[in-house]
Amino acid sequence: MAQNIYDTAAFFDGYSRLRRSTEGLDGAAEWPAIQELLPDMRGRRVVDLGCGFGWFVRWARAQGATHVQGFDLSENMLARARAEMSDAGVEYAIADLEQLELPEASFDLAYSSLTFHYIVDLARMARMVFRALRPGSHFVFTIEHPIYMASAQPGWILTEDGRKTWPIDGYSREGQRVTDWLAKGVVKQHRTMGTTINALLAAGFALRNVTEWHPTAEQIAATPAWDEEMDRPMILIISAQR
Amino acid sequence: MAQNIYDTAAFFDGYSRLRRSTEGLDGAAEWPAIQELLPDMRGRRVVDLGCGFGWFVRWARAQGATHVQGFDLSENMLARARAEMSDAGVEYAIADLEQLELPEASFDLAYSSLTFHYIVDLARMARMVFRALRPGSHFVFTIEHPIYMASAQPGWILTEDGRKTWPIDGYSREGQRVTDWLAKGVVKQHRTMGTTINALLAAGFALRNVTEWHPTAEQIAATPAWDEEMDRPMILIISAQR
Repeated sequence: MAQNIYDTAAFFDGYSRLRRSTEGLDGAAEWPAIQELLPDMRGRRVVDLGCGFGWFVRWARAQGATHVQGFDLSENMLARARAEMSDAGVEYAIADLEQLELPEASFDLAYSSLTFHYIVDLARMARMVFRALRPGSHFVFTIEHPIYMASAQPGWILTEDGRKTWPIDGYSREGQRVTDWLAKGVVKQHRTMGTTINALLAAGFALRNVTEWHPTAEQIAATPAWDEEMDRPMILIISAQR
Repeated sequence: MAQNIYDTAAFFDGYSRLRRSTEGLDGAAEWPAIQELLPDMRGRRVVDLGCGFGWFVRWARAQGATHVQGFDLSENMLARARAEMSDAGVEYAIADLEQLELPEASFDLAYSSLTFHYIVDLARMARMVFRALRPGSHFVFTIEHPIYMASAQPGWILTEDGRKTWPIDGYSREGQRVTDWLAKGVVKQHRTMGTTINALLAAGFALRNVTEWHPTAEQIAATPAWDEEMDRPMILIISAQR
C-alpha cells in the first residue's frame, strides 16, 4: 500500500494551506496548461485518480460531465470533498491506486494531478486505466517532473562561481526518493521520462502531448519569483489517448 | 545554414580520434540500445541524416538494405565515407539538413545519430521526414539529451558538502548553446524533451519508444568510469513510426 502521508497531521495541515488547496484549480499555476489538453466535459464519464479535496471533480461536473468519480487514499481529504458538494453525478471512494481496478470501458476521460509519483507500479496503473477507458478516450495526468525529483538532495545550489543551478544525480537510478516537504519522510517514486512514456505506449496508449510545464511570460510578470521555474521543470503534464 | 564545425581542422581531427570514429558503431556505447529499436534491414530503402564517416550506411547495406542514402554537411567526412566503400546500393550527398527535401514516400527507414541537436528547425525536419517515409516506416534517431545540454555551463560540479552532481539551468529557455568540445564555439540547439516529442506528434508520427540511454550493468563492470552516466543522461534515443 502506498504511504498515506496526506492523513498525517503535519502534512494535511500544510497541504490544506497551499494556494491549490484554498483556491482550487485556479490556485495551481499549471492549470491553464492542463486545460488546453482536456476534452469538452459535456456528457463525459470522468475518473479522477487522487482527487484530494475534489476541486477537479466539481469542475468537471460543473462543465457538464454526467458522472465524475473521485478516488483518493486520504480519508481526511475525501471527507472535505464530500462536504463541499452532494450531487448524484459525483461519487467519491477511498482507494489505494496500487490495487484499484475499474470496470472495463466505463470512462471517457481519466485524469490525475500530482499523484502518480507516489505509485510504485505505473505500468500496472497504465494498463488498468487503458482498459477502463472507452476507445478514443483521453488520459491526462501530471506528475512531479523527474528532473525535479531525481537528485538525492533536490534543491537549488550555488556554484563556487556564483551560479544558481539545480542538481541532477541518480537520474537513471529509478526508485524511492524520500524528502521532507510539509512533513518529514515523504516517499516518492522516481522514474525517468522514458520509463513513464514507454509504460503508456506498452499499455496501448497513443501519446498526444508532453508538456514540461513552465510559467508563461504573463505569469512571470505577475509573480517575478517564478522566473526560476524556467531553470528546471517541476511538473510534467502528459496527454495520451486510448 | 547550420554551422559546419566538422570541417574545421581542430574538430575534425578530434572527432576522427573518438572511438566511434575509429571503431564505428561498436565503438559507440549506445549502439546496442539503438539496434533494439531498428527494424530488419533486409529489402529496405534507408536514409541516414548526418551520416558522417558512413558507418551506419555500410552497416545497413551489409544487413540487407537495398539502397542506403547518406547525407552530411561535412565534405571531409563524406570524402572518407566514399573512400571506404563503392557500392551501387550506397549513395552519399552533401546536404544542409535545414534545407534538405527528400522525395515523397521514398524510404522505409530514416535514421540519424547525434545530429539533430545542431538543427534549428526540428519541426520542419520532422514534417519533411514524415513525408519522405512510406506509411508504416520507422524514424529512429539520437540527440544529445536536453538534460546534458541545457545548462549555461554543462559539466560536473562538486557541492559544498562534497556531492558530485550535474547542473540544470535554463532548461525551459530553448535555443542556442555554445560549448567548447573538440573545438571552441560549437553551436548546438537546446530543446526540451517535450518540444522534440511534440514536433514528431505534430508531424503525424506515432511515438514508439523513448530511451534515455544509460550504460548497462555489464558495460559499467567493463568500464567502471561509466557509472557516472547513471547520474545524468547524455543521449536521448527516440523511435517513431509513420
